[in-house]
Amino acid sequence: MRTLPDIGIVGAGIAGLHLGLMLRQHDVPVTIYTDKPAAALANGRLLNSVAHHAPTIKREKALGVHYWPVEQYGYSCHHHYVGGPRPLVFRGDFDEWSSAIDYRLYLPKLTEAFEERGGQLEVRMLQAEDVEPLAERHDLLVVAAGRGAFASLFPRRPELSPYERPQRVLSVGTYRGIAYSEPKGVTISASPGHGELLEIPMYTAAGFTTALLFENVPGGDLEILGKRRYDDDPKAYERLVLDKLATHHPRTFERVDPAQFELTSPLDILQGALTPTVRQDYAKLPNGKYALAIGDVHTVVDPVIGQGANSASHSAWVTGEEILADYGFDELFCRRVAARRADVVLGAAQWTNLMLAPPPEHLLRMFGAMDENKAIADEFTNNFDYPDRQWRILATAERTGEFLARRS
Amino acid sequence: MRTLPDIGIVGAGIAGLHLGLMLRQHDVPVTIYTDKPAAALANGRLLNSVAHHAPTIKREKALGVHYWPVEQYGYSCHHHYVGGPRPLVFRGDFDEWSSAIDYRLYLPKLTEAFEERGGQLEVRMLQAEDVEPLAERHDLLVVAAGRGAFASLFPRRPELSPYERPQRVLSVGTYRGIAYSEPKGVTISASPGHGELLEIPMYTAAGFTTALLFENVPGGDLEILGKRRYDDDPKAYERLVLDKLATHHPRTFERVDPAQFELTSPLDILQGALTPTVRQDYAKLPNGKYALAIGDVHTVVDPVIGQGANSASHSAWVTGEEILADYGFDELFCRRVAARRADVVLGAAQWTNLMLAPPPEHLLRMFGAMDENKAIADEFTNNFDYPDRQWRILATAERTGEFLARRS
Repeated sequence: MRTLPDIGIVGAGIAGLHLGLMLRQHDVPVTIYTDKPAAALANGRLLNSVAHHAPTIKREKALGVHYWPVEQYGYSCHHHYVGGPRPLVFRGDFDEWSSAIDYRLYLPKLTEAFEERGGQLEVRMLQAEDVEPLAERHDLLVVAAGRGAFASLFPRRPELSPYERPQRVLSVGTYRGIAYSEPKGVTISASPGHGELLEIPMYTAAGFTTALLFENVPGGDLEILGKRRYDDDPKAYERLVLDKLATHHPRTFERVDPAQFELTSPLDILQGALTPTVRQDYAKLPNGKYALAIGDVHTVVDPVIGQGANSASHSAWVTGEEILADYGFDELFCRRVAARRADVVLGAAQWTNLMLAPPPEHLLRMFGAMDENKAIADEFTNNFDYPDRQWRILATAERTGEFLARRS
Repeated sequence: MRTLPDIGIVGAGIAGLHLGLMLRQHDVPVTIYTDKPAAALANGRLLNSVAHHAPTIKREKALGVHYWPVEQYGYSCHHHYVGGPRPLVFRGDFDEWSSAIDYRLYLPKLTEAFEERGGQLEVRMLQAEDVEPLAERHDLLVVAAGRGAFASLFPRRPELSPYERPQRVLSVGTYRGIAYSEPKGVTISASPGHGELLEIPMYTAAGFTTALLFENVPGGDLEILGKRRYDDDPKAYERLVLDKLATHHPRTFERVDPAQFELTSPLDILQGALTPTVRQDYAKLPNGKYALAIGDVHTVVDPVIGQGANSASHSAWVTGEEILADYGFDELFCRRVAARRADVVLGAAQWTNLMLAPPPEHLLRMFGAMDENKAIADEFTNNFDYPDRQWRILATAERTGEFLARRS
């Protein structure tokens, strides 16, 4: 008799679904708990403007859920614009394409696949007191929900959480009336002192649209984009966006047709802010079992460099491999997961946090080198797929210096 | 201009040499410091009775130093004998062969290859005060010598070092007059309460011989093999060995031809004892640079299950890969090496320490299962190549129970 572990997953985002789908490929019984049915997500407000990079797409293919072929829906490069007295304008090309699919399409489709493949889905609002009954029901509880009653199981790790409050005020929406860049890519535009814009070619229910993710520095000229409520006066908000684009993000503004420019629909905008936080990898529950944190509950990263979903998917994958390879879900198991994912997941968090800070001199040197040397810009771009490699380069001024010495 | 790091390695054992050879394959400048010239090793006393398992042999092949082809010099299995009222006798087969080559042949040959390939070798006795000048001379100092002045840089980790003193009194020698087992393999013979014998088909300067590694429990009937000095009366010692073999390790004794039985030469025996110890992975030096521990200075394991050299070679390999991939040799670098090697290196240490303890019930269950089920014996044997996998199975009674449930 082959015994199989029974796994409970709290949260039906990318981490929970990728883990659940992987385990179902190996016939492991899995229950995913979520507080929202997929239909509510599908018909609700924009969730994010997430890009999936090549390693995540590779995992989607392995799971048989790569429903939007990257060659058709994806993009091939990053266009960089760094404003200032002497603006830098350069491009970095990916070896393998990335893509951005509206999670209101993506998550329901993967949830459907999960259920079709024998996964159990329970839609219910969990409370803190549910943790023990859930832990009793499963051999391992994986918490993959950034919000909700279970997040407090995993204390914040201050040594990896340098910020006490949000570093950007966010406004993300999908718009029509913006011609795609050529080649089709994400434009990363920085307005020093005021924040960044990520202009993302995104596929949504409305077809091919453009997501504008404004990452606005609190107190800067762009903060208003995150603070003024779109719903109060949609047309005025759109005019404000155009005005700010013209002033701060000219490389995107020059591709806008003002006559066509508008939000794709009233629910296609999300405004808010988050505090980047790294939490403990796992928690021992009162009944002696363990709960493992993956995805946002483990590391919340600001979306400024698009690492969150990819980090969550990586974490899910490592967790799945370890579940399949192991014989127990004790502290040894949890430590192995933590050790295996640390390079990618903490690398993504630390790199992201660096990009939110006032740029240190070595980061400016790096951007200068990318402006002058296409191979360096390409390597930096490809390292969006490998945040551990990027962090090796950017962690200290000495490392960046050594990297640039080797490449020049 | 491509810049290359300059690496200093203290110690010319398997860890130092595998690392040095790997780095030379990538033209990295390397200096190995050792207190003994290779010729002194070659003409000296037996160093150990180390077996190399398949992953180590794969690394030798990648380094171009697999000078003793495993098909010709190696062996294919473990013969187990567990004494007691109802002795267990069973065999486990390797998927890939292992081999044991006398380190008085092996280390000098690899040292020669290292120098031929442009590695620098400095023969000198290092003192504690040499650490800073050495650290100044190199970008990274790797300490790969279990003994010597630098070991104290790395504090003992008590949580991973359960023993305060040696758990076995050792006597290892190479003998003639013992017919090889069929198929050719290592015999692992346990005399409960008294210790183990590892009978190893070993290639030495004298040709194909048999190493008898007696692992004797302090206070047991076999302790005398480690305590009585061979040199005081060689013939009496050989008679004592024969006598103890007959009583405690009958599966080996039955292949002995007493008329031929003798030590292959007076230097071919080593007696002593060691305390299994895990030390810190790295140390920050007063000049701000880091020293990394690999091999015996990081983890000393008892030789009872032949894990030490393989663990050291693995650690060297991970270290080499990280050196080649990285841009700095700071704490981030050291932590990455530590995280990547932890599963194999600490798995080997913890599994070894379990085998030295009075056997817990779940280990006895495991041996019973191996006796009854050849596939389980084979898996256990193949896991000598993968101590991390073995430790997953043996770390707790629950894990062994789950493993056996899945396999039965």
